[in-house]
Amino acid sequence: MATSTDFIRRLVDLILNETQIVGESGDVLAKNDALIEFKQPADLEKELSVEINGKTYSNDDLLELCRKVIRFSAKTSHPYFYNQLYGGVDEYSLGGAWLTEALNTSQATYEISPVFTIMERECIKFLGSKCVGWPLASVVGIFAPGGSMSNIYGIVLARHRAFPEAKRVGVAALGRLVCFVSEQGHYSFVKGCVWMGHGSEAVIKVRCDDRGRMVPEALRDAVENALKSGAKPFMVACTAGTTVLGAFDPLEPIADICGKYGLWMHVDACLGGGVLLSGRHRTLMAGANRADSVAWNLHKLGGVPLQCSMFLTRHAGLLADANALKAEYLFQADKYYDASYDTGDKSIQCGRKVDSLKLTLALLARGQSGLEKQMDEVMDIATYVTDKIRQTPGFKLVLDEYQLTNICFWYVPSWMRPKADSTGEWSIEKIDKATLHKVAPAIKGLMMTHGRFMVNYQPLTSQKLPNFFRLVLTCVPMASRQEMDNFVNEVASLGEQIKI
Amino acid sequence: MATSTDFIRRLVDLILNETQIVGESGDVLAKNDALIEFKQPADLEKELSVEINGKTYSNDDLLELCRKVIRFSAKTSHPYFYNQLYGGVDEYSLGGAWLTEALNTSQATYEISPVFTIMERECIKFLGSKCVGWPLASVVGIFAPGGSMSNIYGIVLARHRAFPEAKRVGVAALGRLVCFVSEQGHYSFVKGCVWMGHGSEAVIKVRCDDRGRMVPEALRDAVENALKSGAKPFMVACTAGTTVLGAFDPLEPIADICGKYGLWMHVDACLGGGVLLSGRHRTLMAGANRADSVAWNLHKLGGVPLQCSMFLTRHAGLLADANALKAEYLFQADKYYDASYDTGDKSIQCGRKVDSLKLTLALLARGQSGLEKQMDEVMDIATYVTDKIRQTPGFKLVLDEYQLTNICFWYVPSWMRPKADSTGEWSIEKIDKATLHKVAPAIKGLMMTHGRFMVNYQPLTSQKLPNFFRLVLTCVPMASRQEMDNFVNEVASLGEQIKI
Repeated sequence: MATSTDFIRRLVDLILNETQIVGESGDVLAKNDALIEFKQPADLEKELSVEINGKTYSNDDLLELCRKVIRFSAKTSHPYFYNQLYGGVDEYSLGGAWLTEALNTSQATYEISPVFTIMERECIKFLGSKCVGWPLASVVGIFAPGGSMSNIYGIVLARHRAFPEAKRVGVAALGRLVCFVSEQGHYSFVKGCVWMGHGSEAVIKVRCDDRGRMVPEALRDAVENALKSGAKPFMVACTAGTTVLGAFDPLEPIADICGKYGLWMHVDACLGGGVLLSGRHRTLMAGANRADSVAWNLHKLGGVPLQCSMFLTRHAGLLADANALKAEYLFQADKYYDASYDTGDKSIQCGRKVDSLKLTLALLARGQSGLEKQMDEVMDIATYVTDKIRQTPGFKLVLDEYQLTNICFWYVPSWMRPKADSTGEWSIEKIDKATLHKVAPAIKGLMMTHGRFMVNYQPLTSQKLPNFFRLVLTCVPMASRQEMDNFVNEVASLGEQIKI
Repeated sequence: MATSTDFIRRLVDLILNETQIVGESGDVLAKNDALIEFKQPADLEKELSVEINGKTYSNDDLLELCRKVIRFSAKTSHPYFYNQLYGGVDEYSLGGAWLTEALNTSQATYEISPVFTIMERECIKFLGSKCVGWPLASVVGIFAPGGSMSNIYGIVLARHRAFPEAKRVGVAALGRLVCFVSEQGHYSFVKGCVWMGHGSEAVIKVRCDDRGRMVPEALRDAVENALKSGAKPFMVACTAGTTVLGAFDPLEPIADICGKYGLWMHVDACLGGGVLLSGRHRTLMAGANRADSVAWNLHKLGGVPLQCSMFLTRHAGLLADANALKAEYLFQADKYYDASYDTGDKSIQCGRKVDSLKLTLALLARGQSGLEKQMDEVMDIATYVTDKIRQTPGFKLVLDEYQLTNICFWYVPSWMRPKADSTGEWSIEKIDKATLHKVAPAIKGLMMTHGRFMVNYQPLTSQKLPNFFRLVLTCVPMASRQEMDNFVNEVASLGEQIKI
């Protein structure tokens, strides 16, 4: 056995034993281990002492380093990792990712990735036609490096449909283009408009209701105001699953408004797209089939390894029209196969990482019924923990109910709670906001010193809300009710220990 | 053992046995197998028969599918894969990629990827300071999803330095911005300018010399002409290793011109950056330390798995200035660690795939001396095959010498060759271009039916050259002289069999 084969076999053992990936039954392998051994940056630099300029590392050195990589990394497959909009990885999805890496190719032309090209087409068909509900012949799409890029594809296509001449001459003569997104929508629309030469002011933020959903009447007013001011509206970006509250904008009335004003309708379903896999929950996205484009991150509720983000549109041809430059060294007209299978020129990228195999394997291993069951289950657990939080002393929910699996709440240490009223209740409004704002960071800091749980916090300044926790449930691994109880107890326990 | 663990262990065996990855000695494991079993798209769809809507696949089904994935994919680690600017993967780099996938996280904040954040910083230090030669304190950088995105970062920073107000208000009031790239430079600058709202006409193509290098005098004239026409030049994109001929633009005189006119100097070293690892060859990029930014794909001559593209700049702070929006849910000011370690807001992406571990492991496993040796060796082999092609009947080199490892040539079937002159020589100019244009596609088509070799062809219309082959050597696996001989013989053999 070659020395390097020895290395990779020993590494596989290390990975299967220590990274806590998820097994067949959904159980986390080696789940008793710590989630993270957190070190401050300067300390971690010392621990790792990576010297790229120095010596050649032996297998033992490299494996020792890999062991440290695991030890000091967040185990995202750990049952108590609730920190991000993504979670862990199961062994099937991981297998797809590993085989992809071993075959080391780019998804640019059919000849260098024939299998992955076919698989990408199948994924697009499934997601765009079966899930979103567009007619099969009209669907095109592309895997993009993350949800921000998928959203930016939406802006690019919206602009290109409205102003195709900008591809050649630029936007300087077009006047002030504007697009609309809810005040709780993702910042990638702003980043995109900055890159695209429209500036951050081109993104008009539309008011949300008290559940975090865009208010259609506010959108209509915003479009009218923009038109009156001489601006040129070209797109509405709806959100299906906002980053913080997991809210779904009402797509049907927004589609009506887009239709009335001739605006491109994009749906940022990066987070919430998973509901399309469930007969019970897909009503949250009713009207999605009226959208012009959809962005969907399967590495979130889809449970596929990062990154697996799909940009979809029902305007076949427009993706290529907007992006293609027909570079002669890649997209020769005299190929020995049907060059319409080449995907590279639809993309802003040239070489493009293969994301189709891991998604295909994940879908096949779980099956459509498995995906649906998984989605239904995670939504049930979200309801369970919402109830649990509602009923546990010291906790206050930010919203009384949630549409998705982001569950936002405050914990208020007992010494900080106001007096209960005659019903035995107390109100979060009675607590000084500046003080409450410091609680979540303090609990998080203490939590990281233990390394058993990870959950994120943030304020929501558009609603003037001080720091609160956002528990996010994903499908891999599937949280249990017991784990939810443990989490709530842990937050309460830490919350009583902090000093502010 | 869980069923899924059984799956992934069997998959690892399949990968190590059949994907032809590269072992310790540089030898390809299982190298006698075919490079590719090529199928036309419709036939491949039938062979794979992926039914995402259908049944749940068993382990045996999934492994059978994975076996087909390997069989019908290009084995990029095969010793006769010369088709792309990247090649194969060795077991060390692959190990880094596998561990990355298992830990499934995003390189956005320090807390969710502490180890990878430290490693990215080390990679940036090594590449930007040690290799490019900038002062350590001034270097910042970011891994981007491919070379096109890295180049677009360059345009974004160039624009932001010149017109920082555009971030807020857009480019409409700025007039006609233009940038410059050689006529053989990469198309990503055009794609970038299209997305960025400047349009394809914003990219002014500068004439090359007969070796494919930008002519500094032509650049100076182009800048002068642009200024006279009222346009606003803001950037020159130099190329260190062009896509087709592997040419290096002369950086020193271009730096002088950029200095004179106050233009941002970006170097697209996506292909050629590897020469910076070699004391013998780094003179090809003399003057790189005068650039404002550099794009470098380590998945090309660096031999790291796709994608591993680094954008580097010596303007610390500017990357964040240009891109940051300070989203409150990710980049809280009240963190329990030094939030300056968070990288997400420097990026156009939000979640970002981790590319730092595989590069770090590749660098450590080979060591600096190993990298240098590897770079020197691949350049020697390139010289060897250039000589071999020059001396073999029926072959004509496109250039008499090459600067990098892209070796471009025509093969002329014996019946097509013109009569030799008194010295026994014949000239490629005597052959009808339209006929010659058909030779490479015909040979390529035949080559794919055998599946033993893969090499790409293209025309070079800027120089009015008909289709020719471009052999590309990369470091993993390292080609041998014997393999070069075999390749040349194979092309000649196929070239005699084609019918036009």
